[in-house]
Amino acid sequence: MPLEKIDQLAREWLEEAGNRIFMSLEQSNIEVDTKADRNDLVTNVDKATERYFADKIAEHFPNHRLLGEEGYGEEITSLEGVVWVLDPIDGTVNFVEQKRNFAISLGIYKEGIGELAYIYDIIAGEFYFAKRGEGAFVNDEPIPALAPDKKLENALVIINTAAMRKFPQTLEVIRNARGLRLYGAATLEYMAVATGRADAYISANLSPWDIGAGKIIAEEVGAIVTRANGNPMVVTEKGDSFVASPGVHAEILRDYF
Amino acid sequence: MPLEKIDQLAREWLEEAGNRIFMSLEQSNIEVDTKADRNDLVTNVDKATERYFADKIAEHFPNHRLLGEEGYGEEITSLEGVVWVLDPIDGTVNFVEQKRNFAISLGIYKEGIGELAYIYDIIAGEFYFAKRGEGAFVNDEPIPALAPDKKLENALVIINTAAMRKFPQTLEVIRNARGLRLYGAATLEYMAVATGRADAYISANLSPWDIGAGKIIAEEVGAIVTRANGNPMVVTEKGDSFVASPGVHAEILRDYF
Repeated sequence: MPLEKIDQLAREWLEEAGNRIFMSLEQSNIEVDTKADRNDLVTNVDKATERYFADKIAEHFPNHRLLGEEGYGEEITSLEGVVWVLDPIDGTVNFVEQKRNFAISLGIYKEGIGELAYIYDIIAGEFYFAKRGEGAFVNDEPIPALAPDKKLENALVIINTAAMRKFPQTLEVIRNARGLRLYGAATLEYMAVATGRADAYISANLSPWDIGAGKIIAEEVGAIVTRANGNPMVVTEKGDSFVASPGVHAEILRDYF
Repeated sequence: MPLEKIDQLAREWLEEAGNRIFMSLEQSNIEVDTKADRNDLVTNVDKATERYFADKIAEHFPNHRLLGEEGYGEEITSLEGVVWVLDPIDGTVNFVEQKRNFAISLGIYKEGIGELAYIYDIIAGEFYFAKRGEGAFVNDEPIPALAPDKKLENALVIINTAAMRKFPQTLEVIRNARGLRLYGAATLEYMAVATGRADAYISANLSPWDIGAGKIIAEEVGAIVTRANGNPMVVTEKGDSFVASPGVHAEILRDYF
């Protein structure tokens, strides 16, 4: 199966899914439920969006597998074959409370290698895309490679409160940085680093669907993506996440971890 | 001088200033300097924008005074007469690092009373406006009144790191809230509360130009604006700031301060 066909259909489905999500906001047609804890939200729109992709993938690519947040895919522990890694709505709290600052995230892996990635910030109208080895784009404009030698003292950092608790040394990172930002959607925080709007993002606990697309896009522009301790990140495993431009990644790892 | 004339010219100047700021970003024509400390940035664009307003106000309203961040206005300790309270670029770090998430902020006070307020998020294309007693608007759409009875456990809060240090009890507020957000521009954080995208915003140290417009707009939709301890806020004085929807403001004040 050539990637071109996958890419073409993925874009069609993302556009259709984006339209449906937008309409659900317009019509205030959102039912909220909780999952693991009272701040772990899911809505009928998250579920319908994942179901939409699950049906489309099954119809067009019966041999592909889906690894999705809402469980319409399969139990997946390896990335054999072609796997679609989907978060139908990343930033569900923002979706519910802010009606902005959320995204559809889709990464497509082939034999464990990230080949295609899409993050669609529907309300901002920003469509991030990368194809392995061919760079990253937002709305078809190339995203420039990250500066290799930025210093923490000039860096904006994104470090969520769970990461502050899990890694107390991040409080010192924050003190020595130019500022702290928090947007509440992991994929868009990855994109903040990928576009240079922030220089580092540390999170305590991300799932495959949070990082499946962001990792591919960020690496295409030269960001370093690891676990907090610098170990390689395996997309199928949950865990902490540390993405940054090269100089800031090296400085934080060397001086704080 | 009728407010209608002031309003008309203020809008013209904001549009022109917004175009100039946008062009300076397009042309990468930005020179950065530091003020009080290495993260207190100012650019040639901040200064040119304030100078533009200073000249326009002097030409059209020679009796009005300007209270502006960059010092092209006057030393002002009272709000007698008509005072234009201006931040030419609120969120200068974002302006420099992100090229988004900053705003022009303008509040117009007459004998100490906030009459007109404008916050212009140029890149998002969001123009916030309020006229005392007549409600608040974004791009001419009325902003709905805030829910009076929201609870902290369902609230997104914005509490910057300086406020966390100055008021350690805010760490408990964060733990009991639905989530923490940080955008790095006080006026836009005020607007996040005014539009319900966040429910409380606590900052350790804001200046008149940070709050001059935001306070007027937030109060028009029913937000409560005080110092952190609940005391009234005098716009001409620097200090901490606490803006929230009514229920969340009361709960935080009662249970944490």
